Amino acid sequence: MKIIVDAFGGDNAPLEVLKGCRMAADELQVSVVLTGDEAAIRKCAGENGISLDGMEIVHASQVMDMEADPTEIRTAYRDSSMAVGMRLLADGQGDAFVSAGSTGAFVVGASTIVRRIKGIKRAALAPIIPSAGGKFALVDCGANVECRPEMLVQFGIMGSIYMEKILGVKNPRVGLVNVGVEETKGDELRLETYRRLQLAPVNFIGNVEARELPKNGCDVAVCDGFTGNVILKLTEGLSSALIGQIKGVFYKNIGTKLAALCLKKGMMEFKKTMDYTEYGGSMLIGISKPVIKAHGSSNAKAFKNAVRQAARIAGEGVIPEIEKALAQMKETGGEA
Amino acid sequence: MKIIVDAFGGDNAPLEVLKGCRMAADELQVSVVLTGDEAAIRKCAGENGISLDGMEIVHASQVMDMEADPTEIRTAYRDSSMAVGMRLLADGQGDAFVSAGSTGAFVVGASTIVRRIKGIKRAALAPIIPSAGGKFALVDCGANVECRPEMLVQFGIMGSIYMEKILGVKNPRVGLVNVGVEETKGDELRLETYRRLQLAPVNFIGNVEARELPKNGCDVAVCDGFTGNVILKLTEGLSSALIGQIKGVFYKNIGTKLAALCLKKGMMEFKKTMDYTEYGGSMLIGISKPVIKAHGSSNAKAFKNAVRQAARIAGEGVIPEIEKALAQMKETGGEA
Repeated sequence: MKIIVDAFGGDNAPLEVLKGCRMAADELQVSVVLTGDEAAIRKCAGENGISLDGMEIVHASQVMDMEADPTEIRTAYRDSSMAVGMRLLADGQGDAFVSAGSTGAFVVGASTIVRRIKGIKRAALAPIIPSAGGKFALVDCGANVECRPEMLVQFGIMGSIYMEKILGVKNPRVGLVNVGVEETKGDELRLETYRRLQLAPVNFIGNVEARELPKNGCDVAVCDGFTGNVILKLTEGLSSALIGQIKGVFYKNIGTKLAALCLKKGMMEFKKTMDYTEYGGSMLIGISKPVIKAHGSSNAKAFKNAVRQAARIAGEGVIPEIEKALAQMKETGGEA
Repeated sequence: MKIIVDAFGGDNAPLEVLKGCRMAADELQVSVVLTGDEAAIRKCAGENGISLDGMEIVHASQVMDMEADPTEIRTAYRDSSMAVGMRLLADGQGDAFVSAGSTGAFVVGASTIVRRIKGIKRAALAPIIPSAGGKFALVDCGANVECRPEMLVQFGIMGSIYMEKILGVKNPRVGLVNVGVEETKGDELRLETYRRLQLAPVNFIGNVEARELPKNGCDVAVCDGFTGNVILKLTEGLSSALIGQIKGVFYKNIGTKLAALCLKKGMMEFKKTMDYTEYGGSMLIGISKPVIKAHGSSNAKAFKNAVRQAARIAGEGVIPEIEKALAQMKETGGEA
């Protein structure tokens, strides 16, 4: 399996990318292709004692600017490490692509360079979010701020296949994020999506309220990208704020510090269940080849896990399975 | 100050309502008018040793059905405890109204029986949400699933006055909940609202991402009711899920239980800062008289605090202040 990695994407590039790729090359059955300024990659690796043995480098002279118009990935930034990596993938010179760079450029680049699966209206970002006693795929979490019902239905189908194939969840429970559980709740988008999801080839459990998401209320949470982005960021912000406040309780005085010491093991385990780096990155589902958007602040471990995830998606045939589901829906006259 | 309270609203009615009203009548400078089935109120009070001294009861033969079409508050449920309370308020037989009943019926009833402030497009629910080191008003949190820019601008103005008058926040920071901080982010609704909020008579600090909300990122979070509902419910659900998981760490074995004991005081203080019952209920802002929607699962303390909050809103002249701001905007040619 050959995974292409954007060496210049994210806040900690290229050092953490290189470290993560080294770990991936050593620990997993993958070979890595790095894209980016070759001299800078070799210099960073040399200065930090990271061996590049067995890794290929494909030179790219630019880095995609986080502030740039995402569509410029095809024009002003066509020689960026992200654009070059996507072209390699499109040309069949690798099995999957990973980047922690600009989300907007990633979505535009993947949709236009690698291209969408035939019949898919829009690609969607699908991070895996830990919940009490489980985890769920949040689709879409920001690729599309405005959505139509047929897009949301496809998000549900693709998310379901992803959870089954990659996370091993049998018959994933697909929920529509809404302001109430009754099917009469929500705006026109939710009402129509509800009707269509009932006919889709997924285990649709109806509307799910946001309060149930952290309590294992569903395996696939379907929503527009605006709502998904709010859910993802609020989950991140609230978790870290609450943990910060609890730390304040722990570090109040000598007595509480000693007490906290006894709880350390349990708290570490708890924090691990909440750690997004465990799940790698967000698959951009709906693209014809596996593309993984790693979190902008990814560290080496997160990059390694994103590479692992990319390899699994390629190996488990998630994309052919999505194509099959779409074809079946067409045959049976179901709309997608 | 005379506060009208729906004795049959919420999961714990009428017992917790009566207990809370007793506490309010004893501890605060208010008199209470209860609406609902008089015999049932007297029976519940008698059985539970709650004195109704100094409280007035206005009989209402019905209870608003949680499942009913909210507009039926004016037809099939016109003699419900909620409708009767709202008519008393509209007729000037009290200074404010509190109910923990159906949110939909509450919004429809308040908008059509008590009526909106002249010039206000839509009323909005504005709960106060605790955050690390502060608190913020979330406007709207569910009264309007679909919104136009002029509505959101008014939510910002009203929320700002509310935070200043009732929570004592000087020059409240008004933020627009969005998927990024740049003014080019979001859908048409966000783009246009951003432009208009820049001209509004508030301290507009620009877009705010959901991850900043729990970290005191703004004092007034402006959003459509769909997004606000997701934020409120996710905050509730995630907080309780995380606290549940931490409890699991504490109660693991004898050692951790002893350690947890040392942290009890701090944890109790922490939990208190997160307790929604401290802030009473959500003001439905934009209505011409003070109406407070208490949480459906309110206990006696939450009802007492909602009565206190209702009295403060009436006493501090929040509504005249909103009317003044609207009049000023009209004079200066500002749009609202």
